[in-house]
Amino acid sequence: MRVLRTIAEVRAARAGLPGLGLVPTMGFLHAGHMSLVARARAECGASAVSIFVNPTQFAAGEDLSRYPRDMPRDLAMLDAAGVDLVFTPEPAEIYPPGHASRIEVGPVASPLEGARRPGHFAGVATVVAKLFNIVQPTRAYFGQKDAQQVAVIRRMARDLDMPLDVVVGDTVREPDGLAMSSRNVYLSPAERAAAPVLYRALDAARRSFDGGERDAETLRRAMAGTIASEPGIALDYVSVADGETLEEVGRAGPGCLLSLAARLGRTRLIDNVVLG
Amino acid sequence: MRVLRTIAEVRAARAGLPGLGLVPTMGFLHAGHMSLVARARAECGASAVSIFVNPTQFAAGEDLSRYPRDMPRDLAMLDAAGVDLVFTPEPAEIYPPGHASRIEVGPVASPLEGARRPGHFAGVATVVAKLFNIVQPTRAYFGQKDAQQVAVIRRMARDLDMPLDVVVGDTVREPDGLAMSSRNVYLSPAERAAAPVLYRALDAARRSFDGGERDAETLRRAMAGTIASEPGIALDYVSVADGETLEEVGRAGPGCLLSLAARLGRTRLIDNVVLG
Repeated sequence: MRVLRTIAEVRAARAGLPGLGLVPTMGFLHAGHMSLVARARAECGASAVSIFVNPTQFAAGEDLSRYPRDMPRDLAMLDAAGVDLVFTPEPAEIYPPGHASRIEVGPVASPLEGARRPGHFAGVATVVAKLFNIVQPTRAYFGQKDAQQVAVIRRMARDLDMPLDVVVGDTVREPDGLAMSSRNVYLSPAERAAAPVLYRALDAARRSFDGGERDAETLRRAMAGTIASEPGIALDYVSVADGETLEEVGRAGPGCLLSLAARLGRTRLIDNVVLG
Repeated sequence: MRVLRTIAEVRAARAGLPGLGLVPTMGFLHAGHMSLVARARAECGASAVSIFVNPTQFAAGEDLSRYPRDMPRDLAMLDAAGVDLVFTPEPAEIYPPGHASRIEVGPVASPLEGARRPGHFAGVATVVAKLFNIVQPTRAYFGQKDAQQVAVIRRMARDLDMPLDVVVGDTVREPDGLAMSSRNVYLSPAERAAAPVLYRALDAARRSFDGGERDAETLRRAMAGTIASEPGIALDYVSVADGETLEEVGRAGPGCLLSLAARLGRTRLIDNVVLG
């Protein structure tokens, strides 16, 4: 496994490889990331992982400075998984003085996370476009856990005719249903014990849909009610939206995205399921 | 020469080529375009030209509907010049329903043309990024005549780490100094006779700089005075700016951009020279 810190090193290493699968990450890797790594390895001639805590996707007051990091552990996990290239740039390598461009993907970035995290998705789209241009993968892998991020990147890749396939891996969950997230480390024991209610709320609404319920507002109320049953959790939003545009729907149907965000103490978690 | 109308056709044709030079154009080709084509042919293993009158870079009230077109003549010129690929998409191929992404390059797009043509440079940057991703050139060629467009594309290519070289060709001029432009066809005989004053103004200011004048405001006043000496021309702006950031300077130096825009009847022309 080669660990590369500069864009020039990546371009040189990339030149000799035909197909390449890229898994962009912010590090502090968990089983969700590693499932994407395994797919990239299985589906592509070579595999690359980027580890970069991208400052431009954190809004003021968010957790950039305390975002969890453990580079030695990350590199050991990726080495054991048989990854070929790891790109771990410093912020100044990605954003040298004078950097000013950004990619705006339009309406799909506006609701939900986009409404609560100003500039977040322009930061995500821009850094992902840069990583695509640096690494030039034939396939790029993202987790369904960040559903709106997936919608934003799909929109960007399609709109800008990027020469690669965007591949989305299923959310990986703890045995009690909590979606894997690097931010789970922030949770106190009590918060960790309460956190699985997010998935319980989503799963109950999905089962209600499977049982015939089609009224989106009924599903939203049911999810909000489940969250409210657990003390110490502040609901941020619940949503039943079109899976591609993320516009709220009146009537739920296959492909719709059920999603929610909630705060447990200082920690903000998100989760989602797709109706099908 | 292969004339391709769809993105899929371009991707298939591109696959077999190692190095490729791309000249993006809006058609109605003139000697300025053809000088870029000649360089692309000389410097790259294969050459491609795109012809696409990009609607998103025209502001409301501009000349999109009457922009001059002559596809048979353009194709004959490119065939005679030995071009390998020509990409002539319909607008719906480039902007299918749902397209929403755009690239903003920041401050360099704000003054001069950017201040007078709202959205122009986001339209330019976005379509050029798409053409880069579709054609995947190793080098892309632009004319210095559109100096701010050059600065915008350089900024975008650098900021987004696009894997190609941006090459800039000198402005090609008529014998009387008028910069070649597809829009020159709009000029009445009287306007055409007056139009060389744009370059005379720039050239006089450059000679003043070469003679030792360093005060930018003096150079601006001299250019404006030269334009004012020609009846029937309405000056839009004169500028003495940093060649990379396009910020107006107080003191002129090598690398500074002298630029201006003026209206002759309904036709708006721009021109520039670089101090050196």
